[in-house]
Amino acid sequence: MRSHKRDNHSLRPIEFIPHFTKHAEGSCLIKMGDTWVLTTASIEDRVPPFLDKQGSGWVTAEYSMLPRSTHTRTRREATSGKQSGRTQEIQRLIGRSLRSCIDLKLLGERTITIDCDVLQADGGTRMASINAGFVSLVLAVKSLQKKGKLAHSPVKNAVAGISLGMKNNTVLVDLDYQEDSTCDVDMNFVFLDNKKIVEMQGTSERAPFSSEHASSMIKNAMETIDQIFQGQQKVLSE
Amino acid sequence: MRSHKRDNHSLRPIEFIPHFTKHAEGSCLIKMGDTWVLTTASIEDRVPPFLDKQGSGWVTAEYSMLPRSTHTRTRREATSGKQSGRTQEIQRLIGRSLRSCIDLKLLGERTITIDCDVLQADGGTRMASINAGFVSLVLAVKSLQKKGKLAHSPVKNAVAGISLGMKNNTVLVDLDYQEDSTCDVDMNFVFLDNKKIVEMQGTSERAPFSSEHASSMIKNAMETIDQIFQGQQKVLSE
Amino acid sequence: MRSHKRDNHSLRPIEFIPHFTKHAEGSCLIKMGDTWVLTTASIEDRVPPFLDKQGSGWVTAEYSMLPRSTHTRTRREATSGKQSGRTQEIQRLIGRSLRSCIDLKLLGERTITIDCDVLQADGGTRMASINAGFVSLVLAVKSLQKKGKLAHSPVKNAVAGISLGMKNNTVLVDLDYQEDSTCDVDMNFVFLDNKKIVEMQGTSERAPFSSEHASSMIKNAMETIDQIFQGQQKVLSE
Amino acid sequence: MRSHKRDNHSLRPIEFIPHFTKHAEGSCLIKMGDTWVLTTASIEDRVPPFLDKQGSGWVTAEYSMLPRSTHTRTRREATSGKQSGRTQEIQRLIGRSLRSCIDLKLLGERTITIDCDVLQADGGTRMASINAGFVSLVLAVKSLQKKGKLAHSPVKNAVAGISLGMKNNTVLVDLDYQEDSTCDVDMNFVFLDNKKIVEMQGTSERAPFSSEHASSMIKNAMETIDQIFQGQQKVLSE
Amino acid sequence: MRSHKRDNHSLRPIEFIPHFTKHAEGSCLIKMGDTWVLTTASIEDRVPPFLDKQGSGWVTAEYSMLPRSTHTRTRREATSGKQSGRTQEIQRLIGRSLRSCIDLKLLGERTITIDCDVLQADGGTRMASINAGFVSLVLAVKSLQKKGKLAHSPVKNAVAGISLGMKNNTVLVDLDYQEDSTCDVDMNFVFLDNKKIVEMQGTSERAPFSSEHASSMIKNAMETIDQIFQGQQKVLSE
Amino acid sequence: MRSHKRDNHSLRPIEFIPHFTKHAEGSCLIKMGDTWVLTTASIEDRVPPFLDKQGSGWVTAEYSMLPRSTHTRTRREATSGKQSGRTQEIQRLIGRSLRSCIDLKLLGERTITIDCDVLQADGGTRMASINAGFVSLVLAVKSLQKKGKLAHSPVKNAVAGISLGMKNNTVLVDLDYQEDSTCDVDMNFVFLDNKKIVEMQGTSERAPFSSEHASSMIKNAMETIDQIFQGQQKVLSE
Repeated sequence: MRSHKRDNHSLRPIEFIPHFTKHAEGSCLIKMGDTWVLTTASIEDRVPPFLDKQGSGWVTAEYSMLPRSTHTRTRREATSGKQSGRTQEIQRLIGRSLRSCIDLKLLGERTITIDCDVLQADGGTRMASINAGFVSLVLAVKSLQKKGKLAHSPVKNAVAGISLGMKNNTVLVDLDYQEDSTCDVDMNFVFLDNKKIVEMQGTSERAPFSSEHASSMIKNAMETIDQIFQGQQKVLSE
Repeated sequence: MRSHKRDNHSLRPIEFIPHFTKHAEGSCLIKMGDTWVLTTASIEDRVPPFLDKQGSGWVTAEYSMLPRSTHTRTRREATSGKQSGRTQEIQRLIGRSLRSCIDLKLLGERTITIDCDVLQADGGTRMASINAGFVSLVLAVKSLQKKGKLAHSPVKNAVAGISLGMKNNTVLVDLDYQEDSTCDVDMNFVFLDNKKIVEMQGTSERAPFSSEHASSMIKNAMETIDQIFQGQQKVLSE
Repeated sequence: MRSHKRDNHSLRPIEFIPHFTKHAEGSCLIKMGDTWVLTTASIEDRVPPFLDKQGSGWVTAEYSMLPRSTHTRTRREATSGKQSGRTQEIQRLIGRSLRSCIDLKLLGERTITIDCDVLQADGGTRMASINAGFVSLVLAVKSLQKKGKLAHSPVKNAVAGISLGMKNNTVLVDLDYQEDSTCDVDMNFVFLDNKKIVEMQGTSERAPFSSEHASSMIKNAMETIDQIFQGQQKVLSE
Repeated sequence: MRSHKRDNHSLRPIEFIPHFTKHAEGSCLIKMGDTWVLTTASIEDRVPPFLDKQGSGWVTAEYSMLPRSTHTRTRREATSGKQSGRTQEIQRLIGRSLRSCIDLKLLGERTITIDCDVLQADGGTRMASINAGFVSLVLAVKSLQKKGKLAHSPVKNAVAGISLGMKNNTVLVDLDYQEDSTCDVDMNFVFLDNKKIVEMQGTSERAPFSSEHASSMIKNAMETIDQIFQGQQKVLSE
Repeated sequence: MRSHKRDNHSLRPIEFIPHFTKHAEGSCLIKMGDTWVLTTASIEDRVPPFLDKQGSGWVTAEYSMLPRSTHTRTRREATSGKQSGRTQEIQRLIGRSLRSCIDLKLLGERTITIDCDVLQADGGTRMASINAGFVSLVLAVKSLQKKGKLAHSPVKNAVAGISLGMKNNTVLVDLDYQEDSTCDVDMNFVFLDNKKIVEMQGTSERAPFSSEHASSMIKNAMETIDQIFQGQQKVLSE
Repeated sequence: MRSHKRDNHSLRPIEFIPHFTKHAEGSCLIKMGDTWVLTTASIEDRVPPFLDKQGSGWVTAEYSMLPRSTHTRTRREATSGKQSGRTQEIQRLIGRSLRSCIDLKLLGERTITIDCDVLQADGGTRMASINAGFVSLVLAVKSLQKKGKLAHSPVKNAVAGISLGMKNNTVLVDLDYQEDSTCDVDMNFVFLDNKKIVEMQGTSERAPFSSEHASSMIKNAMETIDQIFQGQQKVLSE
């Protein structure tokens, strides 16, 4: 039996808590089972040097795990003096995903930084970061609209992600940590709400997979992702 | 009128939420007004090199603010590649304070690391870290007792801290951020529950203070600290 | 017309030059069009700490671009003091890919490090690194066999990778730099020679893609990858 | 008997050697017993970014110990790649203390950096740094006056510091290294010459102290600090 | 017998391969025996801050060894986070040498960076870097002339370098790695083509040398260096 | 007229002050004109990893300039996070020079670290470091002999260094800062007291020099170095 008494194609219980902290222009805590990620969106009236004077905005992301969000304590990256390769890979993925849903020209010369800090980890933290990061991003955009700084929202689509895995030729949706650390294949899919794919990353150190398996995982991901879009939609329409 | 409708000698509403996250041997979220700090205690069966083979344990602390715990976004220390002087100064203070309440020989050859991560900052984060850090520390010690690894608790006293300030020759207890950034004098006191002082740090760039003012602040701190000890005691006796 | 006068489904001219340098246990320079990567395999009789006393070996990879392998000079990572997120992401990918083809237990307590240094870049450097890295890895294993340190080769399969992209709904195989910087979708596939997938990474900041497009790219990749396996096989059988 | 044949409330022999080195705008070597600190004041016609265009100057401090100023060799911070938490904490304290005695607006848009390099350490180096740092600062200000760049001195008060400790319930003034490493309580006080307190930092890992002890140490510090002000005054009036 | 069947006063076979890579404004691979160094010259229309608005250009060099250019693998400097003292010493030497042959005022406000990356090391890599770096520098200058950006070449002289050593009181020219690691004295000379000395660096940890030996090595270097100038001249006149 | 009223072939006034600080096993302050360097020798009963279990000792050096030892303030290397190329080049030179005078096998498995900290700089700091470093080294060795840890001194020779320059075809001995920054050629020679050369480093960015000039500088250096050997000898025989 899988955690949270669910079958192979079911998500863990998912909860979005918007406005979790007060200083950020947008914030949202997500709980996907025992994976909890606090995301905030911070707006700054500047753009990175490579966008200087191009009339375009920027969306970027940073990711971090609290040292004891994990089963055993992980060394704090601020003390080791650098972000690990894993951290950088994840925050690049989150940033690309969130940029795919927004018209950066319409955003104007602003940078929105999505900070994703994992309070408790139980697998799927990068997808949880995207799911809640999108909510924080929209809340931040709404704050710009309320202040009259933006007439229209530059957000074109919703974006959400989901992890899948294969174990003994079976597809499992939304892996928790124990499944993640023992499965044969580990895939992450990020979709727009028009069901187009934005990111697709699969890896297998334990057992390679066939193209049929790849198709099967894509199909399963598409069938399940709507529940996440609905969760986002619900808190954003409140 | 001060925030939370309180007079000059009153604390902000204080709340301890023990067992906030599940992986750590001890964890406690504290809310002192709008200052929220998540603390966790992690036990490892090793000691730092300078204690090698001395039959003694160690307690240490690390401190960090989430980038958007603050009014405007603060750069993540993991990306700047080092901890700031302020961060190091604070975590050294927390570590010394928590070591003052425990018999390290009785703890045995173990290290307990108290991670203090500020989710939302509104002044007084270092004192909040000590207050909740103590709860996490005791919970971790209790977990060792439950597992039969310790017969008796090495914790000798409770430890708690409180910040005070002076503005226009008036003492204010438990400063929030706005008060902290405009007051003349900024003091922090850490006490054991026998009312002995463990740490006393006062600074003034705006207006120096007399020895009478110093005595007055010590007196006010001693009168108020009991409320924090009671809050710790309540959640630890549940 | 595409570079090197080829159609949409054709590779650039590919050349493997084994034994390019003399000190390494294995070395291979690959030329895929104007992308040139020098790979070397270095054997050391030790394993990383996490494999200590487990009777298993390890294969890892490092990746770097010479500062002027690119159109404009890129800052040397040794002077900036750290590897970029992109570099770390790529070398993690190469390492995982090369570990998928080898039985680490059979390798014994050794580490083989595959260094991939890009002498000239024109797109597809990470896939070129895997393709030549595999040749260097096998040559290093053969050197162990020649010295009598290994009775049988622990290499179970060949591994090779290929990049694809989509532009205006058309699939392009083996992108050069100009195509890579203007296409809508950028995919990388790594296969074993049994046509199973080891890694699959696709991203799109410009235009998201449908699941049909995903299937189409997988199919095209499978049809073309054999030419790379043949190139590897040819130089390894000499 | 204490070192230098003194009683509990006496300072070690103290000597200020102004103009010790020739390049700095101000310099002063201090000897407090066997603690020797070389301080220099350097004037630069720029201010840190946070003071840009505010018509204010800045005073800051840096602190370092020569590797063999200590009983056993301490690793050079330039080779470990960062300043320790202790170093940063000390130089922040020195900087705040020296800023308390000067009107930064009157200083004009200049930065004065006080470098404090410990040639030989025998306890109390941070207080010695403040005591000599003040002399260097005044000498640098005088050099500005001599050159006609400042009409009036922006220095409002003298500033000086003193360390105290408690051992077996007895107060000891101006601890040397051996006393410092065995006492129960370690306090540092920084005063202006109007006897107002600028900094007050006490810590105790060995034995906590009562509020009466705190008052007693404040009183003792106030009684002794005048000797240091007199030493500063003497060399500055020459 | 020495490597490559040569006598004590002979160079190893030397080969210059200009235009080895295509992106750089100038590039040259040099083979001095089994020492292979790829050099590139990159032109940027900016100067370092210390030359700001002085109407002068700059020439600088960076040096690196591929991890497995050496007999055993050397750790990559990008992963250790800094360039070693040896690397910095070498690239400072290369930079000074190449600046000695060019009129920086005539170059105009441009920086030419010479990257020297050792593909295979067998002794004498720093001198090989200078020899090929000069060729890359001249090719880059010619590209400026072709584009009409420079009317006349600012290159005043050719510059070239050669290593010598002493073993058992015998002078050896152009040491390979095995000789280098066992000889008593290790000298490097850099000359302009007017036979004036630009750099002269000799060291001896094994056996100190007399002034007569010094003179003897200078004489031998002057006799041999012409062959290198001829090699440069030949490829540059093609 | 040169500084200190001397002719072209004369040293500046030179003074060795042994036992300047008290903690180090050996210490010596040197004043060569206005160049003051404090050197200390620290003995540790361990050797670097590459000498593990070879029955040999090690001598190494570290070099640093106090931030305001120079005409204008130089940034502290501990705050920039790394030693400059110049610093590393200098300390490598000092280390090699001091190792040339001692039998490391006779020293036994110990490391002696020579710290050279420039209190005031006026040219020639690296040669001053070697000259005083040798005195500190010998004092440290004598302390080992006094404690009965060494029967015989492993120091075989004295070692000393001297800088020379050329300006308008004239040789100048022992350059001060102003001469150093305007001369055409800058040479450093390190000798053993048997007049053999240990290090010889000459560079010229302004004007290259002939082999006759090189010989002339060697000759002048040999004639002057004896005065430094005599200074060392005098304080060591006291």
